[in-house]
Order: sequence, then structure tokens, then C-alpha cells
Amino acid sequence: MTTSYISKLTQAWQTNNSLLCVGLDPDLAKLPAQFQTQPDGIFEFCGAIIDATADLACSFKPQIAYFSALRAEPQLEAICAYLRENYPHLPIILDAKRGDIGATAEQYAREAFERYGADAVTVNPYMGFDSVAPYLEWQDKGCIVLCRTSNAGGSDLQFLQVNGRPLYQHVADLVANKWNRNGQCSLVVGATFPEEIKQVRHIVGEMPLLVPGIGAQGGDIAATVAAGKTATGGMMINSSRAILFAKTLDGEDFKQAARRVAQQTRDEINLYR
Amino acid sequence: MTTSYISKLTQAWQTNNSLLCVGLDPDLAKLPAQFQTQPDGIFEFCGAIIDATADLACSFKPQIAYFSALRAEPQLEAICAYLRENYPHLPIILDAKRGDIGATAEQYAREAFERYGADAVTVNPYMGFDSVAPYLEWQDKGCIVLCRTSNAGGSDLQFLQVNGRPLYQHVADLVANKWNRNGQCSLVVGATFPEEIKQVRHIVGEMPLLVPGIGAQGGDIAATVAAGKTATGGMMINSSRAILFAKTLDGEDFKQAARRVAQQTRDEINLYR
Repeated sequence: MTTSYISKLTQAWQTNNSLLCVGLDPDLAKLPAQFQTQPDGIFEFCGAIIDATADLACSFKPQIAYFSALRAEPQLEAICAYLRENYPHLPIILDAKRGDIGATAEQYAREAFERYGADAVTVNPYMGFDSVAPYLEWQDKGCIVLCRTSNAGGSDLQFLQVNGRPLYQHVADLVANKWNRNGQCSLVVGATFPEEIKQVRHIVGEMPLLVPGIGAQGGDIAATVAAGKTATGGMMINSSRAILFAKTLDGEDFKQAARRVAQQTRDEINLYR
Repeated sequence: MTTSYISKLTQAWQTNNSLLCVGLDPDLAKLPAQFQTQPDGIFEFCGAIIDATADLACSFKPQIAYFSALRAEPQLEAICAYLRENYPHLPIILDAKRGDIGATAEQYAREAFERYGADAVTVNPYMGFDSVAPYLEWQDKGCIVLCRTSNAGGSDLQFLQVNGRPLYQHVADLVANKWNRNGQCSLVVGATFPEEIKQVRHIVGEMPLLVPGIGAQGGDIAATVAAGKTATGGMMINSSRAILFAKTLDGEDFKQAARRVAQQTRDEINLYR
């Protein structure tokens, strides 16, 4: 029997007392030297980060672009298999931001859920509901739709006014009230805009939010948590680089440094939860 | 020396007297039986289609999802290498519809241009200019931005009214007048809406359009060409399934059937050019 994305996530918020999502963005040039030349270096590095932080996280989010650029899809498969085997209670969020229609989206859904065995995948709403529907056919899986992204250029489209409110709020409304028929949807809302997290939370009720933008991107944790939390959790607050490439203090190795930063981040989030 | 995407495409419109883009969407279940079980079957099938249609096309457009779902990236690499070696005058359009920011988009650009050696890649505008900029750093390469897509759900976002005009026209305007600083951009505009192709053409001047939606999707060729053509060409009109999986007539094999449909389509387009 499989456990659905939503129930895994809800469990993990409680079990690990954590809203922290650890993002796996293994930029080869930033890995400790020994992993840069090793054939399975990315897998070995990510495996070590996973072991060092798994009791502090509510989910892991591998970013597929870092694997695609390096012909390293087999290492991503290995990382996902490692997570499923050793930490089956933690959802795997495949950050792929796919956006395509019909038969093509069906292929991307197979990639995410069958090939990588992810519990949820990020998708882009620009092509509309029929670009999201094929993911929802996988009934235990989650579909995390881009809503308000944490980059500066995010405003170019997302902040355009549509019937008196910005496009991203329209997307939140569409997803919450039309697309999310079976409770499988979540939304991406950047931590760089806590006021906008509050607006989205108001529109979508209890729907989980994936929140990038703290850590290296500088989003404010207190404001982010206050804006988006729910009684059970409500958020996956993502940190990638700040944990993966944490500066080591005297006597620490990279795993200890990653664990220290993950713990600090988890605990700081919990101060406001 | 490398030739830029735009000059390759402009040349190919003339040399092959064609606006036809042959889409490579190798749905395994639809391939002739002998290719379904062969280890490099997708590569062999696509290679045969390429050889059968290369003098009739202005470009080839592999759809990466069909490879990703099947762990077949090495076959996509082989197809792109085959195209570069045997048909270097025809641009390779990688249909990936990528959309991500900063460091992540840089990885996707490396994937498209370095790993696959594509001449252009399709991208999604929802995350704004900084999700497109990393592709434009590759100065000989093209960046083809989704504008108005041919699927029914395309209207969910693209037809929302922004300052009195639909969002897709706003995207066309942004790309033409702000993002396209070095003439590297093109737009995706579906053939299912010829009137909208006309609107986009009016906004973007001579910018090349990638037009899916004829063939299996039923777009009208006469209206499409009339709405989007320019003096030199102006369009890549894509057909995938109708060519790849053309019904064989008596005595034809799949290559001859593909060639016949490609030629009919190329010629029908030219009637209105």
C-alpha cells in the first residue's frame, strides 16, 4: 500500500516537528573537492546531506536541472531510491517546473512518478488546466503549481493586474477552487513576499505551500511563518544552498555544518509556528 | 565557426523552400513494432524519419518528455548528434518548455545547448525575464517563449484580460520590446487560433513564430500561413504525429508514408506563402 503525498507530508510535519524542506541543488562546482571528480559524487554528496538532515526535515526537494545539465539522471534515480528506502516517511518533491499539455504532460508525469518515484512534482500553470490534469491522474501524488515565485522577474507576469488583482492571486484561486478536485494540489509562493503569502493563504484555505526564498535568498523567517502557517503545518519552507554549502566551523565537516544550519533553520521556524 | 539559430533558420526557409518543422514526439507505443523492442529503437526510428523528410523541413523539433519518461536521454543525444552531423544547416529546436530562475535556468541552458547541442529551446514566461535571460547569454542560440498555446486550457491564463488585452498579447509585447535585446527570441503561437497569430504578428514585427496545432490538432493551414507569414518565411509550422505515424498506403513503408505527408504539408503551406 502506498501513502499519499498529503498524508506523508502531514505526518512528517508532526513526526520531525519540522516545516523545513531541504533542497538538493548539487551545483558541481560548489561540492567538496572529493565529490567533484568521483563518478557517483553527486549521489554520494546528496546521500550524506540526506543522512545528516533527515530527522530535521519534512521533505527533500531535488532540483532536476542540476542532474540534466550533467547527464546525471542515473544519480538522481539513485538519490530518490535511497530516500524511498531509508526515509519512506518523507515526501520527495521533484522540482522540475514542467509545463506541457496532453500526451506530453503524461510523459512528464511518468518521468516524475514512475521513473523517479517522487511523491510530488512542481509544475507551471501558464498552459492551463489541461497541462496540470495528467499529474492529477496519479491519485496518491501531489502537483505543486507555481503561483508567486521568489525571483525579481517573477513580477513581470505574476503581478499583472487581472480584474483588479494580481495574476498570481488569480492562479491561487483557479488552483484552489477549480483544479484541486481531489486535494492533490499545493502552491509555490516565495518567502521574499510574506504579505503575498498571507493573501494566498486567505484564498486557498489549508492547502500546503512550498516556500522557497529563505536562506541564501534572504526571506524573513518570522514573517513567512506568521503569514503561511496552519494548525497542522501548512508549509514546506525550502532551504537549499545555505544548508548544502554551509560554511564549516572549526572541527566540523560538511555534514556537521549542513546539520547545524538545518537545525538552526528548523528551530527558528518553530519559534514562530 | 558556428552559425546562429536565426541565420540557420532563415537559410533553411529558402534552401528547402519550406516552413515545415517536423516534430519528433516518438511515443513508444505508436512506433512500428520492430522499433519498440530494439535497444536504440527510438533513435533508429527518428533517424529514419529525419532522413525521409530532411529536404522538406526548415527544422526538427524533438520533444524531450518522450525521452525523459523512458530513461532515453542518450538516444536524444544521439539524434541531435545525427542531425548536427548530417543536416548541419537545419536548426534543432529542443522542445523542453523549461521555466526556472538564475542558477537553475543556467543549468537548463547548458542541458539544451551544450549537452544536446540544440540551436534553440522552448521556455515558459511565467517566471519573468530573469528566467529567460540565462538562455540569451548563449549568443548564437535561440529562445522560443510560450505565448499562445494550442490546447483548450491555454485560455485559462493566456486569455485573461490585462489592461484591456489578453495576457498572451502582453507576453508578445514584453518579449518583442523588452526581452529580445539581441534578436534571439521567437514565440510559440498555436495554429488553432489564426486570428491570434495575426494579432501577435502585428505586435512582434518579423520575429519567427513556432506554430504547433496543424496536422493531428486540426489547425487550418491557409488561415495560419496568411496570418503569420513574412517576406522571408516568419514561421516554423510544426507537425509531429501526422508525419511520424502517417498511415501507410499500399506498398509504402513508414518512411515513405512520413515523406508523403511531410511533402503534402510543405506544399500546402507553400500554396499560401
